[in-house]
Amino acid sequence: MSIVVVGSVAFDTIASPSGKVEGVLGGAATYFALSASYFTDVRVVAIVGEDFTAEHENVLKKRGVDTRGIEHAKGKTFRWGGQYLDNLNEAKTDFTDLNVFQNFQPHIPSHYQDSQFLFLANIQPDLQAMVRREMKTARLTGGDTMNYWIKDFRGELLATIRDWDFLLINDSEARMLSGEHNLRRAAQKIVEMGPHTLVIKRGEYGAILFHRDRHFMVPGYLLEKVFDPTGAGDCFAGGFIGYLAEKGFDLKAGHIDNKELSRAVIYGSVLGSFCCEKFGVDRFRTLTRADIDARFNEFRACTEF
Amino acid sequence: MSIVVVGSVAFDTIASPSGKVEGVLGGAATYFALSASYFTDVRVVAIVGEDFTAEHENVLKKRGVDTRGIEHAKGKTFRWGGQYLDNLNEAKTDFTDLNVFQNFQPHIPSHYQDSQFLFLANIQPDLQAMVRREMKTARLTGGDTMNYWIKDFRGELLATIRDWDFLLINDSEARMLSGEHNLRRAAQKIVEMGPHTLVIKRGEYGAILFHRDRHFMVPGYLLEKVFDPTGAGDCFAGGFIGYLAEKGFDLKAGHIDNKELSRAVIYGSVLGSFCCEKFGVDRFRTLTRADIDARFNEFRACTEF
Repeated sequence: MSIVVVGSVAFDTIASPSGKVEGVLGGAATYFALSASYFTDVRVVAIVGEDFTAEHENVLKKRGVDTRGIEHAKGKTFRWGGQYLDNLNEAKTDFTDLNVFQNFQPHIPSHYQDSQFLFLANIQPDLQAMVRREMKTARLTGGDTMNYWIKDFRGELLATIRDWDFLLINDSEARMLSGEHNLRRAAQKIVEMGPHTLVIKRGEYGAILFHRDRHFMVPGYLLEKVFDPTGAGDCFAGGFIGYLAEKGFDLKAGHIDNKELSRAVIYGSVLGSFCCEKFGVDRFRTLTRADIDARFNEFRACTEF
Repeated sequence: MSIVVVGSVAFDTIASPSGKVEGVLGGAATYFALSASYFTDVRVVAIVGEDFTAEHENVLKKRGVDTRGIEHAKGKTFRWGGQYLDNLNEAKTDFTDLNVFQNFQPHIPSHYQDSQFLFLANIQPDLQAMVRREMKTARLTGGDTMNYWIKDFRGELLATIRDWDFLLINDSEARMLSGEHNLRRAAQKIVEMGPHTLVIKRGEYGAILFHRDRHFMVPGYLLEKVFDPTGAGDCFAGGFIGYLAEKGFDLKAGHIDNKELSRAVIYGSVLGSFCCEKFGVDRFRTLTRADIDARFNEFRACTEF
């Protein structure tokens, strides 16, 4: 089953204790697509400016990602700058230049319409809803959001996620969205808002999946060195949804294989961990499916008792 | 196999978002002993003042804990006051009145000498070393420490832990002791300091065990409500060492059953989680071994894939 991802393509300027890079390829849709490409066909809907070259596009194409839904507009691509201090879980934003992203009106190309999975990365909730309406045939829809939309676009966001199948957010977003500090209670409230499957991402501390009355927890992979956590959450989503798509997994079905759903969380964790090993999307230039499966097995060895 | 625990018995005044209690029974040795008592015989070495009554002692005795090594001195018992704000992982200390604990000179009673396990809770490293010398026959020795000793008594601490088998500390202590922020690298450095088995406790985020070239990770149990995290780390230690003692597990042996070692970490996590469900040691008034084993199985269900 193939996946359509809608979200940002960006150029990031990142400083971490391990170094600094300027204007490197990034954005939620980019990270998600690269990550999910190890599992299934991925199609991107995004907007870029004139500074987005064939070389940039080739990073995606080399991984077999369908880039025909990327709109090329006049102006500059979205640019973000941020830095990580000792706490690698949290970025301090230096600047956000939306540029062409400001006028992003995502549309699903007709040749994407047969995709069964739709992932709505972090964009304005109304745009997410609009895309959802354009792709009613998607068997499984869900996405991500962020503190800004939760705080200032609450009504739109709640209306948007009401008919999502899954939501992947981080712990502070889950707390803000639910108004509950305790994650178990936060999850109960969020599931009542619509998505029957919720993944709360906790950065270096791992992730928790909530599905119906069950939850599954995984600790974060213990990296020896974290170069750059930018995009790790999007890569997690790519691994998670990618694995479900590869398996042709239907979350709406009456009989859910809970073990497979848990394995999707592990694949998400695996991809998120690889993402941190180099700056930007660099790790994906050499990463193989064999590397991914080896780390999946490492997760088992480190958590099984 | 029985365990001797050396550490504090205290009266705690605790405020958390769930309420407030004043002068309730606490202290590292108390929490450790109650927790380990579900697995094996536990013997306490501690010092208390005249305000420590038969009623307090009965909390331990009811769980079969040997209290004959508790010295009754003139004056008041150690008192600690602290509060937890929204971040339940960290206490803000309001006061520390050492009282009789200031002159604590721990000695192992002769009828404790046949114990195979020695747990040195967080006390002055020189006192830990002294007790260790008094109990050379212990097959397995280890303990806990805290930021104060790491910072201001580094030499004594390093000399003390050099011949320990295991060390259980929290993540910020591990970082301070090793000078490494990354926990994997921190663990490598600490293991080189002596203890062949290291458990890094991460509060609500679980724990990591390092043993030789292997590590095992467990996420924290997802409590619906945390009343009071005081003592959770000591209860973790009690569950961990308690299970190893129950199994007659010899960490020094050439062939270590890694799965059993991992299960000890789970039992530690289970006991730590129960500790948080009521203020002070209250949860141990009703907790049964069946409750503990049920939560052990819950851990498996929540982490297996």
